[in-house]
Amino acid sequence: MTARSSERARVDLLARVFGTDGSGRTMLGIGDDAAVITPGSQPLVWTVDAQVEGVHFRRDLVSMADLGYRATMAAASDLAAMGASPLGMLAGLVLPEDVSDDDLRAIAEGQHEAAQEVGTHIIGGNLARGRELSITTTVLGETPRPLGRSGAKPGEVVAIAGPLGLSAAGLVLIERGREGEADAAPAVRAYRRPVARIAAGLAARDVASAAIDVSDGLARDVGHLARASGVRIALDPTALVRPALAKAATLAGADPLALALHGGEDYAVVITVPEDRLPEKEFERIGRVLPAEPGARLVTLEQPDGTLVPIDERGYDHFG
Amino acid sequence: MTARSSERARVDLLARVFGTDGSGRTMLGIGDDAAVITPGSQPLVWTVDAQVEGVHFRRDLVSMADLGYRATMAAASDLAAMGASPLGMLAGLVLPEDVSDDDLRAIAEGQHEAAQEVGTHIIGGNLARGRELSITTTVLGETPRPLGRSGAKPGEVVAIAGPLGLSAAGLVLIERGREGEADAAPAVRAYRRPVARIAAGLAARDVASAAIDVSDGLARDVGHLARASGVRIALDPTALVRPALAKAATLAGADPLALALHGGEDYAVVITVPEDRLPEKEFERIGRVLPAEPGARLVTLEQPDGTLVPIDERGYDHFG
Repeated sequence: MTARSSERARVDLLARVFGTDGSGRTMLGIGDDAAVITPGSQPLVWTVDAQVEGVHFRRDLVSMADLGYRATMAAASDLAAMGASPLGMLAGLVLPEDVSDDDLRAIAEGQHEAAQEVGTHIIGGNLARGRELSITTTVLGETPRPLGRSGAKPGEVVAIAGPLGLSAAGLVLIERGREGEADAAPAVRAYRRPVARIAAGLAARDVASAAIDVSDGLARDVGHLARASGVRIALDPTALVRPALAKAATLAGADPLALALHGGEDYAVVITVPEDRLPEKEFERIGRVLPAEPGARLVTLEQPDGTLVPIDERGYDHFG
Repeated sequence: MTARSSERARVDLLARVFGTDGSGRTMLGIGDDAAVITPGSQPLVWTVDAQVEGVHFRRDLVSMADLGYRATMAAASDLAAMGASPLGMLAGLVLPEDVSDDDLRAIAEGQHEAAQEVGTHIIGGNLARGRELSITTTVLGETPRPLGRSGAKPGEVVAIAGPLGLSAAGLVLIERGREGEADAAPAVRAYRRPVARIAAGLAARDVASAAIDVSDGLARDVGHLARASGVRIALDPTALVRPALAKAATLAGADPLALALHGGEDYAVVITVPEDRLPEKEFERIGRVLPAEPGARLVTLEQPDGTLVPIDERGYDHFG
């Protein structure tokens, strides 16, 4: 099936897949010039994220449904890092000629599933033609206390909710055709179906001093947090590699610590928090916050003997 | 100059161009995981729009600054059609390798100018690499009374704020190298620097029964409104071609009425309203609302003798 309907028919197709938001907050959904949402009393948190073919994904390695799912979770993850609950999402799709109605339906089903998973709905968007398939998702949410990147204080612990390095390991295993093996399953799932840690963000909201989500790679993302907060971060290497990553990395022939530090696309949430307030149900400790020191690197690994080994804040730079 | 900085340096460049929102509503702008806005008491109106190279624009026909300006106004126009005031914008940019830092600065300056023009600010966004230059803009606004497409009633008049057909005429004149001629100026300006009719939308908000903006072409867009409202629209051909369009069309060797009906990208706002409540300062009458009739075409031209001539609801269909 390679049917390609008109824009109006495709909007109707999307409206059927996305259905109607039952939250009571959406006053007007798909089909008008804009979506309308009932106002609330909490600060609004708002983000946009794009997934572009050939940069963020390859169509031969990810299904259309997985693509829709991943793009939606990647955008929702920014809200998790702000301690916010989503109110709704708009999806902007750029579709090349070879994307059929069935492909579009699969993308939309993946988007819808991810939106439902984080307790929200896709309530509008935009369709455009283009040579390069891309999904741009904008998410609106709310929180009584937005968690920024800039509040980390020396003496606090660094903690994480969600996997590290698994998504990057999953991509390597898919590329190498080893996704069918048992040790590959958690990594392949982390790549294809990452999860925005909304509940963890809510649990951290009233106790954490700063937060960020791991999209470009842990080293790079905690570097952003350290810079915004004027602190240094010392990571504990023994806490970064968990058993599932160790097994997947062995299968992939990759260094598990490098995957954990630089892999990216895990969409884990990293917080800084006073040790006695760590939400232990959702978060695991992975390091600590040190005071700034002129000339010192912002992100280090703290060896068992206390030595601080500088880490490159590399990760994914779109223009590097 | 073809400098291409890292992602972080480019975000800093954008933050400098966009500056800080002085509205008092932005609690957190560029540089964190998401933007944060102070809540209000009015319904939220939210839209997203994409401009894609080769589909919506050609780099040889539009400057980078004009591109940023147009993309921003196209998105803001959806809010005008809802009778809403913008609260802020996020800009998602996909940038090919040949877009230099200077190009990016020019795009951002155009975006900033357009945002200021409609009384708002770009407070965040996303940068990604890609093969195809695109700008996806999401706009959040508020209004006590959202104007939808579905409230038009038979007996009301149809009225417009903003130009018709001029933008399409401008594009033809630019393509033909005739933009330097005096009669071309208003059309070229309508193409390069279209204006979202925010003030007109606000003026219509408490009196109009329905509204839509003219992005794909008048015939197509009023067709959407007629369908959503369950009415027919009869347009007055003598009201559709104004002197500036007539002159530009002559220069372009094009039919002015066809440009007015099918041109698109004018970002005028069309409303339906009881005749005695028409906001005459902002709007001009261009037709009337008729009751639905089984089998009858939704959009027609009403000739001086009262004959209704069906019009194709064609315009820009992204997948047509």
